[in-house]
Amino acid sequence: MATGFRARHLSIVGLGLMGGSLALAMRDHADHITGIDLSESARDYALGRRIVDCATEDLYEGVNPADVVILAAPVRAIVEMLQMRIGSCLRSNTLLIDTGSTKQDIVEAMANLPIGVNAMGGHPMTGKENGGIEESDPALYRNRPFVLCPSRRTTPAARLRAVALVETLGAKPIEMDAERHDQIVAGISHLPYLLSATLVATIDNQAQADAAYWELAAGGFRDTSRLAASDVTMMGDILSTNTTAVATLLAQFRMQLAMLETMLIGGDEERLSDSLQPIRQARVEWAQNYENRR
Amino acid sequence: MATGFRARHLSIVGLGLMGGSLALAMRDHADHITGIDLSESARDYALGRRIVDCATEDLYEGVNPADVVILAAPVRAIVEMLQMRIGSCLRSNTLLIDTGSTKQDIVEAMANLPIGVNAMGGHPMTGKENGGIEESDPALYRNRPFVLCPSRRTTPAARLRAVALVETLGAKPIEMDAERHDQIVAGISHLPYLLSATLVATIDNQAQADAAYWELAAGGFRDTSRLAASDVTMMGDILSTNTTAVATLLAQFRMQLAMLETMLIGGDEERLSDSLQPIRQARVEWAQNYENRR
Repeated sequence: MATGFRARHLSIVGLGLMGGSLALAMRDHADHITGIDLSESARDYALGRRIVDCATEDLYEGVNPADVVILAAPVRAIVEMLQMRIGSCLRSNTLLIDTGSTKQDIVEAMANLPIGVNAMGGHPMTGKENGGIEESDPALYRNRPFVLCPSRRTTPAARLRAVALVETLGAKPIEMDAERHDQIVAGISHLPYLLSATLVATIDNQAQADAAYWELAAGGFRDTSRLAASDVTMMGDILSTNTTAVATLLAQFRMQLAMLETMLIGGDEERLSDSLQPIRQARVEWAQNYENRR
Repeated sequence: MATGFRARHLSIVGLGLMGGSLALAMRDHADHITGIDLSESARDYALGRRIVDCATEDLYEGVNPADVVILAAPVRAIVEMLQMRIGSCLRSNTLLIDTGSTKQDIVEAMANLPIGVNAMGGHPMTGKENGGIEESDPALYRNRPFVLCPSRRTTPAARLRAVALVETLGAKPIEMDAERHDQIVAGISHLPYLLSATLVATIDNQAQADAAYWELAAGGFRDTSRLAASDVTMMGDILSTNTTAVATLLAQFRMQLAMLETMLIGGDEERLSDSLQPIRQARVEWAQNYENRR
């Protein structure tokens, strides 16, 4: 975190878990922090806890004085702000970053911002089981990957500044294009969510006829089904802005499942075991690396 | 646990996590405990820690003096013992229980035991991430469901005694026939394992071309993929003795997945959300009940 990032006026649009945690982590690196949110209770909370210096529901008023703006809102809300209103409110040379979970639609919308706005797509790979500004945590971004996706409005200077901002949060900047990002998260995040939800739907369906399914379900089911409890509005926003990549990964998943099932049904135990062993190994190695990185 | 279960001589076949924990939990409810295992190191460990009073690798010698025998081994090892040798070693009126993860093959094999052996299939719904007698824990069974599946060799008296034994462990006896048990565990345990393994296979395959899949995978992937790290030999034994039920549940899963995918690809966001909301609700309610029961 030995970086020189400093904002004169940081404006954060969206005072939820992401925005609140950003404000806390940037406290000592910005002269002034403005929070923008339509929810009065989120603004009051942020002001009351001195998470932000001032708060407003007016997007123009909130972002106009800023030299750094972070859009911490759902994907389609970010796209809408980029398409409709925000470009004309920003000063020349403002650094604009977002935290949306899918990046292609956002980076495309960034391309049409006025020249002079320096925009970089962003996706911090972090979160908590429960959202809301009450959960804000200055360490939320620490040691986590923060993907940066350049847009047509990313100048070389903006790129350096975005990296410095991410490092100031304690996060690890990883630059890649938006399409690649969206494919990867389709695999590691959106596919697991759909599998988890479908597993719960399958058991729920069986349990209509026999409630013992719920009664006997234990730790293995708990882990595999955990993502099914995710916020449906948030996941709908994410899935709907990443349909193509999710469909591709689902097709890959189906193919892999069919291979394992064929061995199982065919009683080909040796091949099944030979397939499951490297899968186990891959999971064990990944988990070790993952825990070491945290 | 206000039960009157008492064994004169308890013999436990298989000194792993399950068998070792059984011995510890039964310490004050058996005059003498014999452990049977082919592994010398497991026997030495069990003797050294006084988990058992004596230990042998000889099945006949180990179970012959017992009035209560528990088979705590992999499913097919249990079936083999039932088919080949153990019946003739047992005294009349011995209570025989097992802890195998699938029950149909075992209960069928129990039906051919000599009359006078009182056999009941059992499946304690508990475990730990790592197995082995070193992990033994007298509380392993506490508050967990312990499914009991009657066989043709379950007398009314044996049934009562099996329930009393389970209650002595602190577990909750749940009686059901073996076929129903195997369908339920196919859904809540074997299907989640296969989904978890297939998810890892899918990501591993993608990561051949782009290692960033592993680099960006985080908490959601960790939970959904955890079961893929299960012991492959153990899972192969379980899956191979429950193929029909697993295939049925896989077909159900595929149907549910196709429904969600159709809504997603078709852009039918309202129906997708209307489907995901009750799924979320079912998971949230189950998790609350599950935590309350523990």
